[in-house]
Amino acid sequence: MLGVVNVAGIPYRTIWPDPGGSAVGIIDQTLLPHRFATARLSTLAEVAHAIRAMLVRGAPLIGATAAYGLALALRNDPSDTGLAAARSALLATRPTAVNLAWALTRMATALAPLPPAQRAAAAWAEAGRIAEEDVALNRALGEHGCARLEQLARGHAPGRRLEILTHCNAGWLATVDLGTALAPIYLAHNRGLPLHVWVDETRPRNQGASLTAWELGQHGVPHTLLSDNAGGHLLQHGRVDAVIVGADRVAANGDVVNKIDTYLKALAAHDCGVPFFVAVPGPTIDWSLPDGSSIPVEERPAREVTHIHGLDSRDQLIEVRLSPSSTPAANPAFDLTPARLITALITERGLCPATTNGLRALYPELAPLPPLAATNPDLPS
Amino acid sequence: MLGVVNVAGIPYRTIWPDPGGSAVGIIDQTLLPHRFATARLSTLAEVAHAIRAMLVRGAPLIGATAAYGLALALRNDPSDTGLAAARSALLATRPTAVNLAWALTRMATALAPLPPAQRAAAAWAEAGRIAEEDVALNRALGEHGCARLEQLARGHAPGRRLEILTHCNAGWLATVDLGTALAPIYLAHNRGLPLHVWVDETRPRNQGASLTAWELGQHGVPHTLLSDNAGGHLLQHGRVDAVIVGADRVAANGDVVNKIDTYLKALAAHDCGVPFFVAVPGPTIDWSLPDGSSIPVEERPAREVTHIHGLDSRDQLIEVRLSPSSTPAANPAFDLTPARLITALITERGLCPATTNGLRALYPELAPLPPLAATNPDLPS
Repeated sequence: MLGVVNVAGIPYRTIWPDPGGSAVGIIDQTLLPHRFATARLSTLAEVAHAIRAMLVRGAPLIGATAAYGLALALRNDPSDTGLAAARSALLATRPTAVNLAWALTRMATALAPLPPAQRAAAAWAEAGRIAEEDVALNRALGEHGCARLEQLARGHAPGRRLEILTHCNAGWLATVDLGTALAPIYLAHNRGLPLHVWVDETRPRNQGASLTAWELGQHGVPHTLLSDNAGGHLLQHGRVDAVIVGADRVAANGDVVNKIDTYLKALAAHDCGVPFFVAVPGPTIDWSLPDGSSIPVEERPAREVTHIHGLDSRDQLIEVRLSPSSTPAANPAFDLTPARLITALITERGLCPATTNGLRALYPELAPLPPLAATNPDLPS
Repeated sequence: MLGVVNVAGIPYRTIWPDPGGSAVGIIDQTLLPHRFATARLSTLAEVAHAIRAMLVRGAPLIGATAAYGLALALRNDPSDTGLAAARSALLATRPTAVNLAWALTRMATALAPLPPAQRAAAAWAEAGRIAEEDVALNRALGEHGCARLEQLARGHAPGRRLEILTHCNAGWLATVDLGTALAPIYLAHNRGLPLHVWVDETRPRNQGASLTAWELGQHGVPHTLLSDNAGGHLLQHGRVDAVIVGADRVAANGDVVNKIDTYLKALAAHDCGVPFFVAVPGPTIDWSLPDGSSIPVEERPAREVTHIHGLDSRDQLIEVRLSPSSTPAANPAFDLTPARLITALITERGLCPATTNGLRALYPELAPLPPLAATNPDLPS
């Protein structure tokens, strides 16, 4: 299946099944932007490692990869025990993105009723559907977001580019194809809307500098890299027309957990009166959570802060230390952006306010109804 | 002159005059934290380079270094032309910090009336006074700030550390000695107040990771390094009791221009109800500016964003590239924190609100009076 986004002129997806059903191919994203290398995952252990070590990352791609991982595991042990063990091993790889749990629950729900002998083939097919649905969700989300970008640009002087700031990587590399936050940008760019993307480098893992800058560059979208610290200054000076980010998990009230720093950018956009959008495909919404306060925030290794990878003068990919050898570091990977700071959520069903009612209007079949107001027996009826 | 802050147990200052008056010694801060090396500057060109290439940095230290640079230049050419040329060469090295212009104006004002033959010696003495006054200012500022930290800690459970977040380096390395934002912290620590400092790495030049972490570590102050993005999350979770930063230039209304990202942290502290302090010695206040909007913000080289220096596995200090080779980058070095987000300014004369009246109460002899309200001839008198 060809992708929408190009790498050196060739459309690619981020994950593709082997025709034989015995492995999936992925791009090893830890080597980007310096090396474009693919890897072949054929066992549960390889898939779990690829997610944990972030060869694949991004909430939607983690979900699709885990689904394929479960399918590969069932080729070896399709028993109830095997299914439960594989599900639990994959669930433990990353704690924050809800798509992981969502994909594994969907797989287990579909597979558990089947006789073990049928499970591996059914799992492979179901993982394929999850991947295809991700592409379809992103395309629909991208269309709604693109319409909003075109609307924002309508007031502009002719020739003035639409200036968009994004954080981390919510591009096609974070999904099976097209991306979430970048989907509206790719579609608008492909249709000729003049735009330019400010790319936060996104410390400490630098997914902006290494992934977003790379994929925008490969596809030919004008962009400029920034330290994460620069966005407030640009917003203050009217150099950003909209901020669009992705999400790792969204609560039923519209609270968003996304890559660390998203909260700071949302505060600045709010303070400067610039619209702040979060691109949210349905599977990223955790309907079980009334708000975002209980979403676990992954604490990642200190070494991601104290050391960094880059290309040396001999084109070797090496790691260097940035801080004194004895300096301790903390590394929370996500933060919570309260719904009050978000202009709108961009979903595959359209845009909505980041509120319980806004989400319920778009997803009436999924959104839980609020508990009935308790009747107070002390009051006269 | 011994410093207050220790390096490997030995008190140091950041700049020291040669006894002969023909050079100054400095620490080459571009090599920290990996190498502790000093350099000797004996010409105007060497001093200008040291400021521009950031061997010395930090608003107060830039001021003192420029003063010595002017004195060294006058040894070669003490004429009016020589004085004007040296002043203008030094002024052009960095655009944002007001201390640079302040120190050069003070020097020129003192020297211009003198016969050229007396200027070099007088300049050397005046530069020494500027350096000594910086230490005295920081000590006074530190005492006032320390009292406020002790006050904040008073409500705490016994044994609970005071948690302070700082950005960039406003420590002794940014001044002649003791620091501005870190002065209250050093004094409180030396007096036994249990405290812990969250250190923003401060991209793109990483002055937090390389300078603040290093000097706190050398002096034995407990601290933890963070990506700049993590502060909002810590503030949201009650893990920061106060934010203290320095300033490159403060307007007469309390608007602060400081290292890029300061605005974002001030927004988050404000949103979370955590006090946000700016340590401001008098010479950092630009009384000529009614607000901060016209303070120039230095745009530094893109390479500071796309490349980074670190220590490789063989302990060699090398540069690596972080982003695709064709990626353009922008690098504004400072941002404006509006006075409304600042809890108080900590000065050598005490704390004050970040307002025109607050500053005027502390500096009545310096603060300009507001223009008289225009009388309206159309109104009956």
